[in-house]
Amino acid sequence: MTPHTVVACCQLAPRVGDVAHNREISLQAIHNAARQGAQVIVLPELMQSGYVFTDHAHALNLAETATGATVSAWCEAARALDIVIVAGFCERLDSTRVSNSAALIDVNGVQAIYRKAHLWDQEKHIFTPGNEPPPVVQTRFGLIGMMICFDLEFPEWVRLPALAGAELLCAPVNWPASPRPVSERPCEVVRVQANAAVNRMFIAACDRTGTERNVDWVGGSVIVDADGYPLAGPLETPSNGPAMILATLDLKQARHKRISALNHVHADRRTDLYDSARRA
Amino acid sequence: MTPHTVVACCQLAPRVGDVAHNREISLQAIHNAARQGAQVIVLPELMQSGYVFTDHAHALNLAETATGATVSAWCEAARALDIVIVAGFCERLDSTRVSNSAALIDVNGVQAIYRKAHLWDQEKHIFTPGNEPPPVVQTRFGLIGMMICFDLEFPEWVRLPALAGAELLCAPVNWPASPRPVSERPCEVVRVQANAAVNRMFIAACDRTGTERNVDWVGGSVIVDADGYPLAGPLETPSNGPAMILATLDLKQARHKRISALNHVHADRRTDLYDSARRA
Repeated sequence: MTPHTVVACCQLAPRVGDVAHNREISLQAIHNAARQGAQVIVLPELMQSGYVFTDHAHALNLAETATGATVSAWCEAARALDIVIVAGFCERLDSTRVSNSAALIDVNGVQAIYRKAHLWDQEKHIFTPGNEPPPVVQTRFGLIGMMICFDLEFPEWVRLPALAGAELLCAPVNWPASPRPVSERPCEVVRVQANAAVNRMFIAACDRTGTERNVDWVGGSVIVDADGYPLAGPLETPSNGPAMILATLDLKQARHKRISALNHVHADRRTDLYDSARRA
Repeated sequence: MTPHTVVACCQLAPRVGDVAHNREISLQAIHNAARQGAQVIVLPELMQSGYVFTDHAHALNLAETATGATVSAWCEAARALDIVIVAGFCERLDSTRVSNSAALIDVNGVQAIYRKAHLWDQEKHIFTPGNEPPPVVQTRFGLIGMMICFDLEFPEWVRLPALAGAELLCAPVNWPASPRPVSERPCEVVRVQANAAVNRMFIAACDRTGTERNVDWVGGSVIVDADGYPLAGPLETPSNGPAMILATLDLKQARHKRISALNHVHADRRTDLYDSARRA
């Protein structure tokens, strides 16, 4: 394992329904990021398909399996460049069901598939929710977990890969833009920071850009350190075209969970009380 | 219940060991805040005693019960002004044990005592940790929960009063200052924002100021709305003397947990998965 890990988020503008275009721009971005030294490259949620489907049939029609053309192309890039890729795709589960998925790919191919467990809005009419906790994969660049977008709004869910040892959580996201006070950082980014801090785990969230069927996006890609402070980003470029952020991470910091002489972010959890209070 | 609730955080500078002084400045601040319209007034953690004890005996010597002089004086103020006060004090539990506690007081006296469950650093050598979840009290200004400082770093703990219906969480804190990147908002404040947003619950965190035995403080008092954005503060006045923030809250916003046509911040939790993953 190298002492430091260079992580990139490629904030791109997929077009819903144009799978060939989306594959092409994702491969360009991967090669560009790798040229700049990136070892772990995160792409947006549903990079392969775009996001704003008309309905379930639309998504099913665009879906691919983990052995389909797009994930295979990403595997080829990971092999050629000796990198890790975490990217979102619309996964065909069987003849009728689709999942909002992310693949973790390294030089040897697909190492894990994660299926979004917390579905946002109309996704509930389209996707089958995942029922498995986020995988944590030992890569040669560090222990990497993954989850997708709205999953990040459930701190209980973020705890799971953190407790399983993830040093870096890679999160493909599509954050729809919503009003916020002038000069405030988007609350989506704030939640990423808090999730990182309470777990002492690095998080790389890769958002998208490019208005799609009248939906705009935060465009807030960010790479946050184990203290919860941004190392790169947050970008704030809604509809202003693609962008990339890059940061060099000392992932071993995430192995040190002590935050004072007597405190440890995980050991100090009083799970007995959380449980008993919930049962009451 | 009034349609809106005016909340104040009085960021004061207690002196460790000077209980009479601390009581006096707290009463002055309460009366001042009430004159400006505050209906709910939050004071810092350990307002009554100060924070940086030399040892357990020091804290035990300063401790009072919930019928002691300081809490009684706060009860008198709450009765005279018809307000709610949430304030921290060093509570004597018995002849040998002390708790880092907060009292919620209204016109009728003490309505609840909360005892800090997650102890910070040397507090572990001084205080007996609480074993009860944060109380949620129906006041005439709204449903109010409370917790103390480091408790806020455990999102599982913040869930409990939120699930119990709290519209406003009042948090006396003493945030020790620590280095952070220039121009970044303190991560303590960021965590408060995230806790509010993922629960759609208002949070008022009242920090302290005034260097005490070489410990300085963030001085980051903040009142955050149910979307996670500050309505007042964050103050950033370490050692710059006392200050007050005031905000008018529409607490009924916290009763609406829907964040899209199909999403609800609490109902969307997949507790079965959190549990099974933890047992695994």
